[in-house]
Amino acid sequence: MLEAVERRLEQYISSLEEPIITELYRKLPSGKRLRAKLILYIAGEKNDAIKLASIVELIHAASLLHDDVIDDAMLRRNKPSINATYGNKVSIMLGDILYSKGFNELTFLDNKIAQIVSNAVTKLSIGELYDVEMSKDFNTDKDKYIDMIYGKTASLIEASAWSAALLCGKKGENYKLYGKNLGLAFQMIDDLLDITSNSDILGKPALHDFVEGKTTIPYIYLYDALDLEQKIKLKSLHKKILSQDESIWILEEMKKNDILSKCYLDAKILIEEAISLMSYENEPKLVAIAKEMIDRNF
Amino acid sequence: MLEAVERRLEQYISSLEEPIITELYRKLPSGKRLRAKLILYIAGEKNDAIKLASIVELIHAASLLHDDVIDDAMLRRNKPSINATYGNKVSIMLGDILYSKGFNELTFLDNKIAQIVSNAVTKLSIGELYDVEMSKDFNTDKDKYIDMIYGKTASLIEASAWSAALLCGKKGENYKLYGKNLGLAFQMIDDLLDITSNSDILGKPALHDFVEGKTTIPYIYLYDALDLEQKIKLKSLHKKILSQDESIWILEEMKKNDILSKCYLDAKILIEEAISLMSYENEPKLVAIAKEMIDRNF
Repeated sequence: MLEAVERRLEQYISSLEEPIITELYRKLPSGKRLRAKLILYIAGEKNDAIKLASIVELIHAASLLHDDVIDDAMLRRNKPSINATYGNKVSIMLGDILYSKGFNELTFLDNKIAQIVSNAVTKLSIGELYDVEMSKDFNTDKDKYIDMIYGKTASLIEASAWSAALLCGKKGENYKLYGKNLGLAFQMIDDLLDITSNSDILGKPALHDFVEGKTTIPYIYLYDALDLEQKIKLKSLHKKILSQDESIWILEEMKKNDILSKCYLDAKILIEEAISLMSYENEPKLVAIAKEMIDRNF
Repeated sequence: MLEAVERRLEQYISSLEEPIITELYRKLPSGKRLRAKLILYIAGEKNDAIKLASIVELIHAASLLHDDVIDDAMLRRNKPSINATYGNKVSIMLGDILYSKGFNELTFLDNKIAQIVSNAVTKLSIGELYDVEMSKDFNTDKDKYIDMIYGKTASLIEASAWSAALLCGKKGENYKLYGKNLGLAFQMIDDLLDITSNSDILGKPALHDFVEGKTTIPYIYLYDALDLEQKIKLKSLHKKILSQDESIWILEEMKKNDILSKCYLDAKILIEEAISLMSYENEPKLVAIAKEMIDRNF
């Protein structure tokens, strides 16, 4: 089913008639195409749905190109990122090319859909800006964290589900909330994985986020749970390269205070609401996507 | 007349309801608003023309933010650039925010206009990518240079004039060509100024472009005019920090071979065509803009 989306994406790129861009595009990992899947599951496989799914994936690819520059990420899905291979300048411009091509193709769809998707890109970019800004200090405010990940991650997933519903004449509200919850839970789980997954090099979690200054939800809960002296210690480690002892201390305190279950529960509540919305709408495939997300191994 | 555009731009920014973005936006120099002027001169001062002018300036501002990151530019109109003050990450994201807000507002105008403007942004980004790619080697191909500056600079000016004409029911073709010629000449003259303007620090032209690897049109013509030995010398200086002797040699060879007049003539031919198009359309203000451009002091 995603075949048609991949073909359409190739067409969008080749219509630019720039071999260098086709070459760069082919180096991008295609990922799970979560947003495209949502759109096709909701709106079916008619031509406009395939267009919308391709446009959203184009926009998502653009956002990842800029995100990797922002995060100085050298890897994307275990392959060297475009910025690692070709430099930040190429990543920024390729991102702009994919964004503008996406917006251009949006103008051939219904106006309301173009508005929803372009508005989500503004939210996404604002979320990324806050991600950068917030990582300068130790953020202890859960609401600020939720607002930021809503922009950075959930807004485009929300827009995908919402606009797909409108495209096929379904009532948008439930799909919109489903997409939002799915996106929030997805990012929370991603942030948890930074603490639970063993790094290939270290054989233990690398705690990349914390080293980069990102106090994701587990750190916010941990900070809450610690006593004053420990709070000071945790803050002193923020945005620093951690010694083995220091990272073990963080991981042990996370364990002692049952932080990971608390975060997991937050994600689970969001997913359960998403599941019940899609059960009500009689959308078993969308229920399955939500279930898979919370069952990810971590 | 531009007052209404400035007010509308402020509204677009404040509608994002993010004080940090308003603060950053106010740090951007507003520039000459060439594109907005063209649009208002062509389409008059009705509401849609003010919207279009503001959207194009928003998009232009976004492109400059990314351009400054690409060029590692520390100054923009003699003030520290956003990337110099706040870092590349903030510039990239603020650019994305302004781009997407611009695209979002485009969806409230006629579809054809949204298509023209978004398509110009793709061309602009491709032009920037080629600017980066071409600066790796000594480019001696004038056509490649023209294609690149068409994308980088002329495409959005062309789109401004063209879409403004469509907005008020004028026939687009002459306005489109006027905008294209104006944009090409603008970039050529800008490239000439890098060779003719004395730098504040050095008291002589800094030849920034050549040091950065950009073989703009004067270098292409100079290369053509030199004998084999001199060609080799010129190529050996490409993308290097130049000694005083080396930059004097380049400037003297430019003078001996009458390179600047040759470049100026190219720009003049484009401007003359632009003037005759707008004389034919009975647009004295647009004629005046073209005349001013070629009369710039250099």
